[in-house]
Amino acid sequence: MQTLIKNAYILTMDDEFSVYEKGYLLIENDQIKQLGHMGEEPILKEGYQEVDANNSILLPGFINLHTHLGMIPFRSLGDDIPDRLRRFLFPLEKVMTKDLVSTSSEYAMAELMLSGTTTVSDMYYFEDAVAMSCEKMKMRGFLGQTIIDMPTCDYLTAEEAVEGSRLFIEKWQNSDLVTPMIAPHATNTNSVDILKKIVMISSEMNSPIMMHVSEMDYELAKLQKLYKQTPIEFLKELGFLNCHLIMAHGILLSDEEIELLSESKGKVSVAHCIGANTKSAKGVAPIKQLIDKGVTVGLGTDGPSSGNTLDMFTQMKMMANFQKTYLKDRSAFPAKEIVALATKGGAKALGMNHKIGSLEVGKKADMMLIETNSVNMFPIFDPYSVLVYSANASNVESTWINGERVVEKKQLVEQDLSVLRSNLNNQMDEFREEVERIQRRPY
Amino acid sequence: MQTLIKNAYILTMDDEFSVYEKGYLLIENDQIKQLGHMGEEPILKEGYQEVDANNSILLPGFINLHTHLGMIPFRSLGDDIPDRLRRFLFPLEKVMTKDLVSTSSEYAMAELMLSGTTTVSDMYYFEDAVAMSCEKMKMRGFLGQTIIDMPTCDYLTAEEAVEGSRLFIEKWQNSDLVTPMIAPHATNTNSVDILKKIVMISSEMNSPIMMHVSEMDYELAKLQKLYKQTPIEFLKELGFLNCHLIMAHGILLSDEEIELLSESKGKVSVAHCIGANTKSAKGVAPIKQLIDKGVTVGLGTDGPSSGNTLDMFTQMKMMANFQKTYLKDRSAFPAKEIVALATKGGAKALGMNHKIGSLEVGKKADMMLIETNSVNMFPIFDPYSVLVYSANASNVESTWINGERVVEKKQLVEQDLSVLRSNLNNQMDEFREEVERIQRRPY
Repeated sequence: MQTLIKNAYILTMDDEFSVYEKGYLLIENDQIKQLGHMGEEPILKEGYQEVDANNSILLPGFINLHTHLGMIPFRSLGDDIPDRLRRFLFPLEKVMTKDLVSTSSEYAMAELMLSGTTTVSDMYYFEDAVAMSCEKMKMRGFLGQTIIDMPTCDYLTAEEAVEGSRLFIEKWQNSDLVTPMIAPHATNTNSVDILKKIVMISSEMNSPIMMHVSEMDYELAKLQKLYKQTPIEFLKELGFLNCHLIMAHGILLSDEEIELLSESKGKVSVAHCIGANTKSAKGVAPIKQLIDKGVTVGLGTDGPSSGNTLDMFTQMKMMANFQKTYLKDRSAFPAKEIVALATKGGAKALGMNHKIGSLEVGKKADMMLIETNSVNMFPIFDPYSVLVYSANASNVESTWINGERVVEKKQLVEQDLSVLRSNLNNQMDEFREEVERIQRRPY
Repeated sequence: MQTLIKNAYILTMDDEFSVYEKGYLLIENDQIKQLGHMGEEPILKEGYQEVDANNSILLPGFINLHTHLGMIPFRSLGDDIPDRLRRFLFPLEKVMTKDLVSTSSEYAMAELMLSGTTTVSDMYYFEDAVAMSCEKMKMRGFLGQTIIDMPTCDYLTAEEAVEGSRLFIEKWQNSDLVTPMIAPHATNTNSVDILKKIVMISSEMNSPIMMHVSEMDYELAKLQKLYKQTPIEFLKELGFLNCHLIMAHGILLSDEEIELLSESKGKVSVAHCIGANTKSAKGVAPIKQLIDKGVTVGLGTDGPSSGNTLDMFTQMKMMANFQKTYLKDRSAFPAKEIVALATKGGAKALGMNHKIGSLEVGKKADMMLIETNSVNMFPIFDPYSVLVYSANASNVESTWINGERVVEKKQLVEQDLSVLRSNLNNQMDEFREEVERIQRRPY
């Protein structure tokens, strides 16, 4: 199966940032077979498909490095409330069911694809169901079952969740679209014993770890009180810095901690979730310092409860403005670098930069096509600037994952969004009742 | 001419934040004739139009309190370059022509309408042409001719620009859609004599003043060096604080200056342009302090050179995240307050809150309808949250200005976007040549 995309403005995002202003790209099965300037495209046998991408920008799909796909039901709930975690999130997570997580994840994957994301890194509950959603939706997913020292909607204890994670990794480790991870909730929400087991499983099973790190004031206070350690010192002692670790957030990092991270030689990365971090007033992660010290950085939306949308355009825009302001330098993080973080940065963090994150021969055909006919997309002096500062999710015309076109003309190809919504809505009755109970309580 | 909008989720943005979850609104000519709950709608004579707004949110149109409509040609040019002002903006503004400003303004107005903005406050050059564009496009505009102490593309001296402004105000002061303003460029870019003349004209002709204030480090340094004054002390001494003054930006304000502004008793307001301010690393304006002291605040995008899009959804999102982070308080500026600033805040700043900024009987029918079928718009627990944190410009289904529907089904009603683009593109030849000359120069 071959598809020839013609006349595209191609941003390859390879290491030289190669650009083909009028280019072609040939997909064969799940891979990029060839790409180059128009006029040099190969002669193909009959039966191939052709896509005219005139006036459109072709680039690698976004990699959303941190989210919670099961949390679509929480969107727009209690956004501006100080103790939202205890008032809404914890009580509502008790009524989450496998079906609710599954329908939410499918809806969330639709949102990802429609906004140009081709790989998602998720941690939540019932991840086996999420993995099946990836297969149904044809989404590339890195998925980790959350392990936390309290009863959750799927496991009664952290021990059970650890065993569940082991089975989950075994089941999915040879899947084409799904890569299983192991996902301790945070540095301060698991016992040392559990954390040690997780390090062992990660090493034995060669499975990445996804974890909330250096996100909360009280996380730092607790580790300081119990162990007189910063989160990174604590993780180092437990062996996490020798694992393939993706730290979500990494906001409250000291220079000493960044130094420790830099010694991990690229095994540890940060998922920068600037929208969620700043909406909750937690602060701005020291991304320049991390990158300068060789730590890999990708971008994430966080869940739709914290970040509201799963749209990476908003993250790119927010990152540019927050980092420039934080560094007091309008030239910091030029648009090109931010697009690179949203694509190959994420790929590198996932240990997948040999397969995804840029448009190069032999890589997976994971990519998006952006139309420039909409009012916000003219003129274009710099396509990276346009992507970061002007574009929004609705400019995504097409998305391909693993060589398959999952979005065309701004619509899902195989799925019907209204059916996905109605499936999710039908699962939300108990959730809505619980919301009403919470809202009736004195506050 | 009557139009009945039925089944809408109406956010009136009146002083009580009245909401009709299933409401109707009746437009008669240019005004809101009646609104309320469905089931209570009036019986109308034949010949009226009906709009079924089921699953859609109706709210007042946005008021973009500060922009430069003529600057669409600059979009995506030199965004991340430190001295962009001197490298790109000043040289390129020399080649601006009346036709370029006019076609750019029409294109910009299309962008405004398509993203739900119904009133724009503009300062640029050739404002007489911009006023004519307002009439052609049916946009409500507050327009001020820029006055600056250097030769510009339309006047050789500030004196000429002042005289031009006087004629401009005379010509347009009785227009239905256009309100003329007078627009000294900034506190530091005009002579004291010129500034005094401007204060006089504003008072005599009852014309608002739009001006860049407290935006630049070197603005403060210059006034300190020349007069040992802060910008607000300087403006007070010249009489600006007794005028109807809209200050664009107001970033670098001290507590003492905010106190002086509060003594103006509502005559002075701030156009908060958070996207442009932070993209250029200028900082975060002290909006909470200003509001606490009774200073009126509205939101603006700034020009498409600094802010890139004219979309107020991005501004609302940026404002929420920046102000919460700046104040270290996730509950600061809840979504409802931000929607209020983007609508009636702007109306109050323009002295027009008796006519626009909320949906109330007798006010102008300036409003937008937001669809909620798109993937990012579900679920809706709080419609204000959805508008601030989830929605983007492409969720705007319809826009009415002065009772007339200018956008329907996400398309311009009377204008053809591709024609507006091609008109603008045709005027950009000399501009593009100058861009190429600049880019060839050593840098």
